[in-house]
Amino acid sequence: MDIEVELAQIIINEEVDQQVIVLRELSGQRAFPIVIGMPEILAIDRRLKGIALPRPLTHDLIEQVIEQMGGQVTKVVVNALREHTFFATIHIRQGQFDIEIDSRPSDAIAMAAGLRTPLYVAEEVFDQLGL
Amino acid sequence: MDIEVELAQIIINEEVDQQVIVLRELSGQRAFPIVIGMPEILAIDRRLKGIALPRPLTHDLIEQVIEQMGGQVTKVVVNALREHTFFATIHIRQGQFDIEIDSRPSDAIAMAAGLRTPLYVAEEVFDQLGL
Repeated sequence: MDIEVELAQIIINEEVDQQVIVLRELSGQRAFPIVIGMPEILAIDRRLKGIALPRPLTHDLIEQVIEQMGGQVTKVVVNALREHTFFATIHIRQGQFDIEIDSRPSDAIAMAAGLRTPLYVAEEVFDQLGL
Repeated sequence: MDIEVELAQIIINEEVDQQVIVLRELSGQRAFPIVIGMPEILAIDRRLKGIALPRPLTHDLIEQVIEQMGGQVTKVVVNALREHTFFATIHIRQGQFDIEIDSRPSDAIAMAAGLRTPLYVAEEVFDQLGL
């Protein structure tokens, strides 16, 4: 089962390369951090704040690609944790089809942040984290 | 008219934020630099070298989105220069339709670099540069 979560914290430290976001379940207290890169956390932060720039940055471009190809992002799921790496899928509705795109959580959440798309974490990811 | 070009140089300087690529026409000597960001130049360099990573980076994700939504990138065109900013379009063939996506040149060229897609520059861009 997938558990709906929210992006509870965005921790940007410009002195290091690795940045941290925290996902927390909506109907409970379980939360965990994911380490991501600087460009991705800046994209998440900017898109969450709805700051539009004169030119599309990379995740804005993905949004345009999906929209102009007739799709809509319906949800993002952090669906696995293998060897300390989180995996995610971006779910796109295109006509009658649901397409699942394999993604790093950072890119998937950057997409979701701009589109206000719901975020989920698979129950087995919480299990693996011992939560 | 659009002139076919090649990515003639990729100049990475890790001590500064702004990076430089050089586009040069295939059938002549005209060339010009475009200033781009660090994440984008690293993506161009890596994708051009065909270096695959265990997880998809952002431009690999765009490639997957386009492919899984039934599209194919046919060309990238640097089509305008306005107030010192270059504009580009990514052309995607989806079934019977040609879709043009507005993009920064850096993202468009990062896409093209991985897909071996032809690059073009509009004649008027050369004109505006005085070339």
